[in-house]
Amino acid sequence: MTSSPGSFVERLVAELGADVVTPSADLGTRRVRDWSGTPGADPIALIRPSTTQEVSRALAFCHANRQAVVTQGGLTGLAGGANLLGGEVAMSLERMSAIEEVDTVSGTITVQAGVVLQRVQEAADAAGMMFPLDLGARGSCTIGGNLATNAGGNRVIKYGMARDHVLGLEAVLADGTVISDLHKMIKNNSGYDLKNLLIGSEGTLGVITRAVMRLAPRPAGVSTAWCGLPDFAAVTRLLQHARAHMSGGVSAFEVMWPSYYDYVLANVKTVRAPLDTRHAFYVLLESMGSDAERQAEEFETMLGEMLDAGVIENASLASSAADATRFWAVRDAPAEFPILLPGLIAFDISFPIADIGEVARQCEAMLHARWPDMRTLVYGHLGDGNLHVIAHLNNAPPDLEEHVDAAVYELTREWHGAVSAEHGIGGKKRAYLGYTRDAGAIGAMHAIKRALDPLNLLNPGKVLVEASPGKSSPIGAL
Amino acid sequence: MTSSPGSFVERLVAELGADVVTPSADLGTRRVRDWSGTPGADPIALIRPSTTQEVSRALAFCHANRQAVVTQGGLTGLAGGANLLGGEVAMSLERMSAIEEVDTVSGTITVQAGVVLQRVQEAADAAGMMFPLDLGARGSCTIGGNLATNAGGNRVIKYGMARDHVLGLEAVLADGTVISDLHKMIKNNSGYDLKNLLIGSEGTLGVITRAVMRLAPRPAGVSTAWCGLPDFAAVTRLLQHARAHMSGGVSAFEVMWPSYYDYVLANVKTVRAPLDTRHAFYVLLESMGSDAERQAEEFETMLGEMLDAGVIENASLASSAADATRFWAVRDAPAEFPILLPGLIAFDISFPIADIGEVARQCEAMLHARWPDMRTLVYGHLGDGNLHVIAHLNNAPPDLEEHVDAAVYELTREWHGAVSAEHGIGGKKRAYLGYTRDAGAIGAMHAIKRALDPLNLLNPGKVLVEASPGKSSPIGAL
Repeated sequence: MTSSPGSFVERLVAELGADVVTPSADLGTRRVRDWSGTPGADPIALIRPSTTQEVSRALAFCHANRQAVVTQGGLTGLAGGANLLGGEVAMSLERMSAIEEVDTVSGTITVQAGVVLQRVQEAADAAGMMFPLDLGARGSCTIGGNLATNAGGNRVIKYGMARDHVLGLEAVLADGTVISDLHKMIKNNSGYDLKNLLIGSEGTLGVITRAVMRLAPRPAGVSTAWCGLPDFAAVTRLLQHARAHMSGGVSAFEVMWPSYYDYVLANVKTVRAPLDTRHAFYVLLESMGSDAERQAEEFETMLGEMLDAGVIENASLASSAADATRFWAVRDAPAEFPILLPGLIAFDISFPIADIGEVARQCEAMLHARWPDMRTLVYGHLGDGNLHVIAHLNNAPPDLEEHVDAAVYELTREWHGAVSAEHGIGGKKRAYLGYTRDAGAIGAMHAIKRALDPLNLLNPGKVLVEASPGKSSPIGAL
Repeated sequence: MTSSPGSFVERLVAELGADVVTPSADLGTRRVRDWSGTPGADPIALIRPSTTQEVSRALAFCHANRQAVVTQGGLTGLAGGANLLGGEVAMSLERMSAIEEVDTVSGTITVQAGVVLQRVQEAADAAGMMFPLDLGARGSCTIGGNLATNAGGNRVIKYGMARDHVLGLEAVLADGTVISDLHKMIKNNSGYDLKNLLIGSEGTLGVITRAVMRLAPRPAGVSTAWCGLPDFAAVTRLLQHARAHMSGGVSAFEVMWPSYYDYVLANVKTVRAPLDTRHAFYVLLESMGSDAERQAEEFETMLGEMLDAGVIENASLASSAADATRFWAVRDAPAEFPILLPGLIAFDISFPIADIGEVARQCEAMLHARWPDMRTLVYGHLGDGNLHVIAHLNNAPPDLEEHVDAAVYELTREWHGAVSAEHGIGGKKRAYLGYTRDAGAIGAMHAIKRALDPLNLLNPGKVLVEASPGKSSPIGAL
């Protein structure tokens, strides 16, 4: 058959089949924008392949026709990475959602990229093991999206980021070339690490189709405490002590500043105070062990030592799962913020652990100096160096976000921090990438983008500020 | 000053200074080849920069003159990755050996790439922490070499490969461009992961100059046991059970087959049998915990359960450091093999853990079928999927290695294993890279190599079979 006549979408349907390609007009109420609130256009069509070969055929056809493609997962991203600029085709791997294998001897799970995170967790659990990656969007986000954005979440301090769970990866490049590195080995020094290059590239270098990921033993005992501390030095001392003295390590170390704590207690109705005392810092501390009794004993000993040393002023130890849930409710309150604080401006930044106390202090002081009526809420995964800052102003002028972004990212640059700790750059933070990465690194990123996607067709305009399509210059000229 | 006349080396001296550049004739007895035994040429000159800026100037000058450069670390590699093909300049970062900072609050150490691994371990120890990367060559190998080859070693099962310790990296690209990503954050999703691309690229994509690496808490208690097991199913069951029931996890799980064990006991004079019983498999099991007493108790309980269940037939628990050293001596015996078995052929391959028993059986059977008088010794870091096989034949024909390589790597390909688990591809295994990576992956590697080193000047001829210098083709044509 020769090439079909008609529009690109008609030819795409002819090439891939009407069951695979849905034209824009037939998408109905399907959501095509992520949770970021950044603007996003409608796709000209949606491609839903069922196999890696179909992904490859679709990308090869788009490549031959110079058609841009944006891959979408669960659309729970917060950086606009899955939103369309206009004119692109969207691709969803929702039909590739199989859990292909759980290998308890090798300790691996092999999945297709369209599977929802929670299903992977459940499959691991059913096999008596644990898949440690966990985040609030677990019921909607997909593994493909988790890997494309190198998702973080609640257990990074003990188990690492999304990339740290991956042993093998299959992906399709811009021109349809399949890269299949679906290995199960922890050690594999055979050639360049393409896996980690694709992970976190936010759909700009390839489409992840399958992955082999590690499973962890399921912990038998979880200990949780809510602690009040007198100053930031005490916070870092508690972190170091808990890390050194808990055999199973620290699985969560969530720090909340009084600005955050007081606001949440006053405004989020379902939250109750874990302690009736006030402190300069609050820490939600969690540790997991392989023996429930020993774990509990070790945890109580460690907490007692820290209370005796004055590092912790007051603490409440969870004596039931219900207690732990009550403590976590304080930390999980930000889910209510978009309703309570409409138009809020949120930051996901990271710093060396040693600097976080001072950075947070300067950040709040700077924001209050420039916008005296601004409300700021500060909290974070301190063990990972990840700080979350929420800024909110009633009756905000339309350009507020632009100015607050500029101010907070400038501080991030001064303190050698990262403008994105776990959410990614997407479309939202492109202008600030140079605050964290230097010109040499950004030049190398452009060179790699051009090498793997010379026509700039995969999620164009994300992560990097537009590379000229097809340009091929020596790296010295970048 | 305009460009100096004379040979390239004379101009290099003029550009960088006589203190930085040593012409070949003045190198004396300096070693310029690694431990691999593969052939290596002498460099036309040796460059020893003292700063990142000097590395940059040197590479920019070589780039402008189309001069190839091979970076050498401690020259302890086993894949010929640091050996010269002929005509290259060698670069050593031995003058960049500073430990710049130990930050115990953030849990990081910042070093220059020329520092010897053991010095980093000692600096961490002096600060009350641990740098977990450890391998036999610790007294000579450098961090730059460890990262360039993504070194593995003794503690991968608990702490990961070299890449897993790195938070930030500084490197210089082929044209002298400096990439400085010297961040201390555990979480940093700001742009592509160039760090992991450079790590393990064996000096072909850039020269690593500095790194920020994570430190771990120093364990208070180490438990070690020597176990005899009845079959391979018991070996994997012990691994799973120990992983699930030791809070501190498993820090070593070294498996030795009878072929290895019997040979070592009979031939390595300093080694004594840890048990007086014979078994189908021997496992050296180690676990580390943060509380010496609890750790010991947990370890003994776990061993007792495995003995009662018949998973372990017999075990000896180290009751002193001397006992543990005695057990480790059996596992460390391969250091003697080059003298005992001249001309031995060694393999560093990896497989899914579940397959290793059968692969090892087939490998020994295949080698004995083809070479009836061949001695084979099999052992490995089983928890990492890493198998080491030694093949030796008295009065070997000159082409033996070629044929044994082909046979063992063919088996590796059939079992979807890796032709290099931890030593790298270097010059030695280039022909077999395609046994582990597919055509799509190798094409992408070439595209990245051309993007970052278009003139093919950095360690040419290593990892990848020659890319045509300066060629710039669309990826579809790779």
